[in-house]
Order: sequence, then structure tokens, then C-alpha cells
Amino acid sequence: MDAARTGDRAAIARLLSMVERGGAAAHEVGRLCHPLSGSAYTVGLTGAPGSGKSTLTSALIGHLRADGARVAVLAVDPSSPFSGGAILGDRVRMGDHVLDTDVFIRSMATRGHLGGLALAAPEAIRVLDAAGAAWVLVETVGVGQVEVEIVGAADTTVVVVNPGWGDAVQANKAGLMEIADVFVINKADRPGAADTRRDLEQMLDLSTPGDWRPPIVCTVASAGEGVEELAAEIDRHRAFLTGDGRLAAKRRQRLRDELGLIVTARLRHRADQLLDAAEREQLEQDVVERRLDPWSAADRILGAVDA
Amino acid sequence: MDAARTGDRAAIARLLSMVERGGAAAHEVGRLCHPLSGSAYTVGLTGAPGSGKSTLTSALIGHLRADGARVAVLAVDPSSPFSGGAILGDRVRMGDHVLDTDVFIRSMATRGHLGGLALAAPEAIRVLDAAGAAWVLVETVGVGQVEVEIVGAADTTVVVVNPGWGDAVQANKAGLMEIADVFVINKADRPGAADTRRDLEQMLDLSTPGDWRPPIVCTVASAGEGVEELAAEIDRHRAFLTGDGRLAAKRRQRLRDELGLIVTARLRHRADQLLDAAEREQLEQDVVERRLDPWSAADRILGAVDA
Repeated sequence: MDAARTGDRAAIARLLSMVERGGAAAHEVGRLCHPLSGSAYTVGLTGAPGSGKSTLTSALIGHLRADGARVAVLAVDPSSPFSGGAILGDRVRMGDHVLDTDVFIRSMATRGHLGGLALAAPEAIRVLDAAGAAWVLVETVGVGQVEVEIVGAADTTVVVVNPGWGDAVQANKAGLMEIADVFVINKADRPGAADTRRDLEQMLDLSTPGDWRPPIVCTVASAGEGVEELAAEIDRHRAFLTGDGRLAAKRRQRLRDELGLIVTARLRHRADQLLDAAEREQLEQDVVERRLDPWSAADRILGAVDA
Repeated sequence: MDAARTGDRAAIARLLSMVERGGAAAHEVGRLCHPLSGSAYTVGLTGAPGSGKSTLTSALIGHLRADGARVAVLAVDPSSPFSGGAILGDRVRMGDHVLDTDVFIRSMATRGHLGGLALAAPEAIRVLDAAGAAWVLVETVGVGQVEVEIVGAADTTVVVVNPGWGDAVQANKAGLMEIADVFVINKADRPGAADTRRDLEQMLDLSTPGDWRPPIVCTVASAGEGVEELAAEIDRHRAFLTGDGRLAAKRRQRLRDELGLIVTARLRHRADQLLDAAEREQLEQDVVERRLDPWSAADRILGAVDA
């Protein structure tokens, strides 16, 4: 932990591996990191595969590093095999930052973690926060529900789409409209960027009017275009949140949610242990075919808790 | 139960009161009704207060009754005081059907029911189903999250809006776009109906393309206009669901979800009993202020389960 605090990448990587594996060691890491955390600013980046999130993240790192801030990237990928402690350069397109000792990049999988990604991700962020990162960028590979929740829990959430009709529709479908604080139309040099902007504006018109209307930034991440504007919009959102206590309230709620998730995951784990999958499936089938009522089925599932 | 099966309204009302109060008696009612249920078709109606849902429901009853089918209406109102067994005529605008013994109308509140409305509503529907209703219309007063979930779980869900710009936007905000199988623009004789239709079509264009695109029906429920078309669209959706096993799959999933809710509600109830609100608040505050980590807080919340 002391080594991690000084930015020792191997030490940070070991702590993250412990978090990924879950169990008692992960909780011990969490216990150590929790009092040391709370100063990093988290930015979530999400969007469909191929939208250029990694390139954009890499370009954003370069911009944030200009201030000398320490930056960590957590690439969340539930479908990837367990990374087993890959530390650096495991995301090819972020190779630019391999030699920068103040940039830490890590892919995260969660095999074996009770509660899965929804619980493992905040724990990993806590490690990076406690290790002194000023910025933690959380990037997801896909837009599944849990990934959306994780990224949506960041201080500022960036939703990346591409030019063309379908993309804004897909973003809406994936529930990204609700979590976006900033929209990016990446690969904006391709045809259709104006259509996509119009679609997004239209969807914003139709959605909740709030105190913050997500700005739309056009970028060509591979050429570094628009990245400065993106960084400026992130800063503007950060100033908006910080201004009147929203950030503190958002973080407080996040910790409460995490505590609720931990309690629920532990309870569910107990319930799951009470019956194996085949037994549960049989009970459900009995309820569906009306041989058994739902309360008696619940009694059987919960029975072993009382035993 | 035998009396309820013959359509005895007082007997049905007593069973529903038991369900509202929750506890062991409610589960006993559920156990009795579960094997007898499964033949009613459920239609959910939701929309903002004042959109004319009750008038529309009343007009729809008249139409469904033309076939001689027995119809039950469950008006879900989480904010109303406990109805304490009001049986008939408790919804003034449904007064038309007071003398029709094959129409059963009931407001439902859920004081005291563990799991709240989300669990009490399917239990009440089960009672009405077992009592021989061919149609169960579930109407909500507001559009809160739980109400949306309940109505969205109906076989066919009708979302009611009014003419004018704001209404379609509010429907979208309340998460009604996702659950609608049929849209109704009620009070369609007022200015703005065409605008509202255009807004809805636009939102449908932007949302998930599926095998069923929700039709939009214009009604003036107070004059009975458009009600026949609404009934026809409900029938068309029913035929769509029945055609290829979707209805059976939807109902199977609904029972599985209910079982999951029962198990989770019981587990949460246990966890809640372990700490009073003040103790939990204090624990959350300790986590937020980093005097305590989330895992130790969860240990304390769950500690009494193991004790």
C-alpha cells in the first residue's frame, strides 16, 4: 500500500489483482484504501464497440497530463478473460503513454468477484484514487447494463457516438441518454456528423430538462481534433458539479448505493448457496406450471437461512 | 374463496383486503388463488394525473362487457389512504358500472404490505383472475417508478397522453415509451393532438425497432369516441402476443420476476430489521466521512443474521 501510494505501478497492479479476485483480500484492500480515497475526479467514457473510445481516452490522457496530473485508466471489459495482472500496454492504442510513469492503464475483468463488475469497479477506482491519481478515466468496451451503471456513476460521464443515423438511436436504446453529461461525436470527419448532432439535440429536447444540458463535442480523436474542447467541457461540468455541492451529494449517494449493493450481494449470495441452479430452475418451473405457489417457493429458497 | 369464485363481490373484497394488509393471511390467499389463476388477460393503463385514464377505463369496460365477459378493475394508488374495504363506486367516474354485477372495481393501497405495491399488485390481480374475471384492467393514478413497473407487467400496456407538446415529453421522461404497447391521445378534440401524435411518432422512430410498433389511438373518452378502436388495438396486440408463444413467455418471466422479488423482499426485510433507521443512517454517514469502510459497515448490518 505504501509503495502504491508513491505511484509504484507494480504495487498498484498487485492491489488491483487482489480486487479482481474478490474475497477477503479484496475487502482488506478496500479497507486500507477507503480512508485514503476521495480526491480523484472520475470520468466515465462509454459508447458502442468501434466508436473510438480508446483512441479518445488516449488523446484525453495527453491533454490531462499537460497539467502534470497523475492519470489512471480503468478499462472495464466483462467479456475479456481474466487479465492476470497485465499492467501496461495491454491496450495497444494507448501505447503512447507506455513510458509515462504517471499514467497507469489497466484492463479489468472480474472473474470470481462476488457482486461482479458493479462492485469490483468502484473498488478498483478506490485503489487508483488512494494511490494518488488526480484523474481516473473509466472506459467500457461495450454498453451492457452493468457497464452503463458503472460509467454513469462517474463524476462526469462522456457518451461517444459516431456519425450516421443509427448511432444516436442505439445510444438511446442502450440507456445512454440518461447518463450522458457530455456527448462526443467521434470520427466527425465522416459523413453524417450533422445528422447525428441533430438526432442528439432532438433527443435532448425530448428528455428531462435539467440544470445541465449535455453539450455535444465533435472530435477526430485519431488526429487529436476536438480533444481540447472535450477537456474544456469536462472541466465545465466539473465546475458545475462543484459549484453548489452537487459533487459531494453525488459521491455521498454513490457510497450509499455501494453499501446497499454490498449488503444485497451478500444476502443474494447466501440465498444462492441455499439451492443449486437446477433446484431453483425446478422450483420456478413448478411455480409457472402452478404446482407450487411463489410464497412456498420462496420459503424453500430461504428455508436454509433459518436452518 | 368458493364464494369469490362465483363472483361474490363481498367475498372478493375480503380477499383483496387480506392481500392489502399483507403478512401470513395474504400469502394464504395467494396460495389458494395461484393454481386457479392464469386465464385472465391483463391490460395496464397509465398516464399523468388528469389525462382521463378513469374515464377511458370506464368506457373500455362498457366495450368489453358487450361480449358478456366479466371485468375487474384494479386502481393502484400508492398515495391514497388505506381504503379499508371499499368495494364499489369508490371511483366516482366509474359509477356507470355500479349496478353491473359482472364488473368489479377496487382501489388499492398497500399500507403494511412487505414489498409494497410491486408485490401486492400481482397478488391482487391473482385474486381477481382466480375469481373468474376474463379481463383485469390495472389503472394507476400516477406515473411513479413502481407504478410504471406494475402497469408495464400487464399483458398489454396502454399509455394515455393528452394533446400538447409537454405531454409526450413527460411520458418519455417517466419511462413510459419503453412499456407502451398502445398509445392513446385522450381528449383528442383539444388543440394540439396532431403535434402530440407527431412527437410520439418521432420518439417511436428513435426507440428500439421491434416486431411490434405501438399504434397511436385518438380518443375522446368522455364521449366514447375512439374507444372501439382502442379495444380493437388491444385485441390486435393480444393476437400478436398469443400468436407465437410470446404471451406464455412473458407470463413465465413475470412469475420468475415475482418470485425473485419475494425472495429479495424477505432478505431485505431481514436486513432492515437488523438495524433501525438511525443506526443505518449513522453507518452510512461514517462511510461517507471515511471513518468506516463499506465492507465493515455491511458486516455490521448483516452481523445479526449470523448471530
